[in-house]
Amino acid sequence: MRKVRVAIAQINTIVGAFEKNIDKILEYAHKANKLKPDIIVFPELAVCGFPPDDLLLQPGFLKKAGNVIDKIVRETSQINSIIIVGFPEYDEETYNSAAIIFRGRVWDIYRKIYFPDYGIFNERKYFTPGKNITLYETPDFRFCVGICEDIRHPQDSVAGEAFSEKCKLVLNINGSPYHIGKPKLRETMISIWASHNAKAVAYVNSIGGQDELVFDGQSFAVDAEGNIICRGKAFSEELILLDFELDDLPHRRLHDHQYREPDMNPVKIPYIWKQNKPEIKTIIHKPPERLEEIWNALVLGLGDYLRKNGFESAVLGLSGGIDSALVATIATDAIGADNVNGIFMPTKFSSSQSYNDAKKLAEILGINFSVIEIEELYKNYLEILAPHFKGSEFDVTEENIQARIRGNIIMAFSNKFGCLPLATGNKSETSVGYATLYGDMAGGFAVLADVPKTMVWELAGYRNEAAGKELIPENIINKPPSAELRKDQLDTDSLPPYEVLDRILDYYIEENMSVDEIATETGFDRELIAKVVRMVARSEFKRRQAPPGIKITAYAFGIDRKIPITSG
Amino acid sequence: MRKVRVAIAQINTIVGAFEKNIDKILEYAHKANKLKPDIIVFPELAVCGFPPDDLLLQPGFLKKAGNVIDKIVRETSQINSIIIVGFPEYDEETYNSAAIIFRGRVWDIYRKIYFPDYGIFNERKYFTPGKNITLYETPDFRFCVGICEDIRHPQDSVAGEAFSEKCKLVLNINGSPYHIGKPKLRETMISIWASHNAKAVAYVNSIGGQDELVFDGQSFAVDAEGNIICRGKAFSEELILLDFELDDLPHRRLHDHQYREPDMNPVKIPYIWKQNKPEIKTIIHKPPERLEEIWNALVLGLGDYLRKNGFESAVLGLSGGIDSALVATIATDAIGADNVNGIFMPTKFSSSQSYNDAKKLAEILGINFSVIEIEELYKNYLEILAPHFKGSEFDVTEENIQARIRGNIIMAFSNKFGCLPLATGNKSETSVGYATLYGDMAGGFAVLADVPKTMVWELAGYRNEAAGKELIPENIINKPPSAELRKDQLDTDSLPPYEVLDRILDYYIEENMSVDEIATETGFDRELIAKVVRMVARSEFKRRQAPPGIKITAYAFGIDRKIPITSG
Repeated sequence: MRKVRVAIAQINTIVGAFEKNIDKILEYAHKANKLKPDIIVFPELAVCGFPPDDLLLQPGFLKKAGNVIDKIVRETSQINSIIIVGFPEYDEETYNSAAIIFRGRVWDIYRKIYFPDYGIFNERKYFTPGKNITLYETPDFRFCVGICEDIRHPQDSVAGEAFSEKCKLVLNINGSPYHIGKPKLRETMISIWASHNAKAVAYVNSIGGQDELVFDGQSFAVDAEGNIICRGKAFSEELILLDFELDDLPHRRLHDHQYREPDMNPVKIPYIWKQNKPEIKTIIHKPPERLEEIWNALVLGLGDYLRKNGFESAVLGLSGGIDSALVATIATDAIGADNVNGIFMPTKFSSSQSYNDAKKLAEILGINFSVIEIEELYKNYLEILAPHFKGSEFDVTEENIQARIRGNIIMAFSNKFGCLPLATGNKSETSVGYATLYGDMAGGFAVLADVPKTMVWELAGYRNEAAGKELIPENIINKPPSAELRKDQLDTDSLPPYEVLDRILDYYIEENMSVDEIATETGFDRELIAKVVRMVARSEFKRRQAPPGIKITAYAFGIDRKIPITSG
Repeated sequence: MRKVRVAIAQINTIVGAFEKNIDKILEYAHKANKLKPDIIVFPELAVCGFPPDDLLLQPGFLKKAGNVIDKIVRETSQINSIIIVGFPEYDEETYNSAAIIFRGRVWDIYRKIYFPDYGIFNERKYFTPGKNITLYETPDFRFCVGICEDIRHPQDSVAGEAFSEKCKLVLNINGSPYHIGKPKLRETMISIWASHNAKAVAYVNSIGGQDELVFDGQSFAVDAEGNIICRGKAFSEELILLDFELDDLPHRRLHDHQYREPDMNPVKIPYIWKQNKPEIKTIIHKPPERLEEIWNALVLGLGDYLRKNGFESAVLGLSGGIDSALVATIATDAIGADNVNGIFMPTKFSSSQSYNDAKKLAEILGINFSVIEIEELYKNYLEILAPHFKGSEFDVTEENIQARIRGNIIMAFSNKFGCLPLATGNKSETSVGYATLYGDMAGGFAVLADVPKTMVWELAGYRNEAAGKELIPENIINKPPSAELRKDQLDTDSLPPYEVLDRILDYYIEENMSVDEIATETGFDRELIAKVVRMVARSEFKRRQAPPGIKITAYAFGIDRKIPITSG
């Protein structure tokens, strides 16, 4: 056994964009080759992008994926490294597979055995499970391949067979989407697994935004004692090189389950270990701080949604409030100020301070700024509806009409100029339905959909601090939130203070706690908690029609949470 | 062995409405009791409604379900029948279970073993599978219980044990949602299973609408040769009584797999077979014809969405076209003409014929009819946008502004009067994105979301024929479809004729065929097919924000089809 050099290609792929993905894979394979790695490894389903969902049901999609593997094999035949690439395999059934390629030949196809059933995943709908983990053997070293969930089942008989004593190195390929706390969770889990099984592990992740999901990269490796020996960058493509010193691995077993040797023979690959490898410097990048991490997730999530869907610019309503200010700032970081269009659309309920704040923000950021007065339009609606609404008072109807006029205008800009309309609502509002469907909820992408209001403030503070200046005007951050849809309106007219609301929502939505449990935990008034829970239940129909947004918590609406609208 | 009398309670439950569901269950148990059945059987998850989705993750929900079972046990203690009720069971893990109740005691809890992975189902997210099918034994007869998918796996070892030779009767409880062809499919499948395994089967289904799903009932029973011996009504609650003549069952085995006897002992229930049972008449209801079946699915789906969500009335835009005419007619059948409000909202592009058609329809149906001119509003939008849109031509932007004004007005009626706004788009339009997001796509429920345009015409013809008169004016049915958003516009300006479009969509969406395969199959121009496929792909973002609608095909958008928006 020798030092085994592994190149982890932490790349950004696009679902269904086979040509672009193959170019990216070949680019990284050739770049890696210069550093003489023994193994070059790509993420789960790298050739088709992740997650492809129902595209996997289209025969043409699977056929293309097979052709792409053929092309990769041909075009890497001169590279003297074992190449591992994730792809959707069709062979009477569909499998989530990894091709083990070397010198112009596919030596084996490894098929994912275990599927996650939780959260966003529904892989059993698409994939047939593989049966065996395989031992790959070169004259100089041995390794196994696992895909994502496979590595969580060490006690299982199949995996027990697979990760036999003969194997000291596991290459685990993933498409592991980000949420707060996830990077740490992965490392802890894999670290425990590695030390438990006395194996070194390379954990390979992709990066990039894909609809609601952001993949954060942060690929890493652990030695057989579970120590982190390498960590890639967050939210950025990277070719990560490291040397595993397999000779030094301990032979002890730390756990009590029985290994069984694989039933099948190892797959032998005639790879000859390379000598005279160039020096590499393996870095353990420091993970970003919490707010920086979230900020970068939002910027990459929005940026990739725009770029991958062919948008060059975005448009949003600027109200002078904190939510639209934050979205404008994220958009500016994602695609540059020139490509961001903010529109201020006042009625008589809009304060002059709101105008000043919106204008100041636009000036500091350098984004395009327009003002469109909608008071006349609003009056016009009231006039034509007056004969039908005779005798009724001003209520939420009139508030919503204003918000929907704004939605119509934002969408008109989007239609006319081809820019992506951004919805600016946050998770707290969306949770309790404090938002107008087709009004402020209108848009192609809801950047803050999974960001609670209290975190909106934190992020604004973080960004100003990072900029070392007032990027988002302090007055926007400090003033009491208002929808400005009626006279002297404040959010607190309808909602508890956001510090209270967000704690209740966190316990109810993320922790699935009952009203009584939340009351015990927080000491808040039971009736107030019950009211919030009712508001959440009653606004399910709005969330069902909300634009997609970036998942940053463990339990995002839309993608993670499937609650019936009709519910007693 | 004697004749065993089974009462199938084909009931309509509401997700999460435990009190109402328990009342319904007790009502049916007591009603059945008069006819002295040996067994009374309720559908899958009857106590909590089906499908509860993520409500199953809330501990309070599961606790309530357990309490409800206790109440059923107490309140049926005087009923001398074995009662089988589906419920979500929590016992450290969560199970999809059936309680086997008799005389005030739960004799056993059967846990569903097999979970479907296809289409709408994702049960593994919530439930732990059971381990064994159990043989239930009274001094006079024996039976087994299966939940839905359990009965599809006769060759499997677990089910092989379960459905041992000693058992001649299987009670299979289900929540099986409707789609076209499904009732026939179920009967064929169960019939084959029964004859294959030489067992009689009672297949118990629920009825009712639950968001996108409609449960059609049509519970049935087959003898051990697979003959249909009983069939319940479609889309209607019913207590179905029948006698199984288990003595007459054949002892032959028709298949070649080996039975193994259950490892565990049978559960013995001290039930004494009843004599002197009153006469019953077991009916094999004729299944509805295709269009009648679809019509009833739509009426029940919409009606239950309204009733179960507490709406008494509905509002929709009447354009004078076929889609809104059909929706108005379905709504009238569902909740009565008095509760349906149609609003005609013309611009200068609306023809006087459209007005006449809309008005005539409203008069025939007897629904409320209002006219709101929106030309002024539309001009007002154009004026305030003019400085920003200088030099641009009339395009889809201006079309969408009109549609979104209408959306705003419909929503204002909904907000002011608490009526459910109905979206009127059909599946063909939704497929290719020939609809305005937040415009004609606005609404709480999209009645025709899964009905292709050609079927819209068929259904209009069917309803007129069933009425024996012109309910939907012939002119509405016969005129060429137009969105009337620009001068002399016809749908065929942008789309192929619907007969062509619907065939392409059917092959592409339902059959997952490629462009080339569709070209070969239909002989249509390859470029035209490719254009339609591109339109489908590009409008995914619109469908993501569409209101829920009633699933009537095997592959409905939203609920069945999960396609990434970002896709190369």
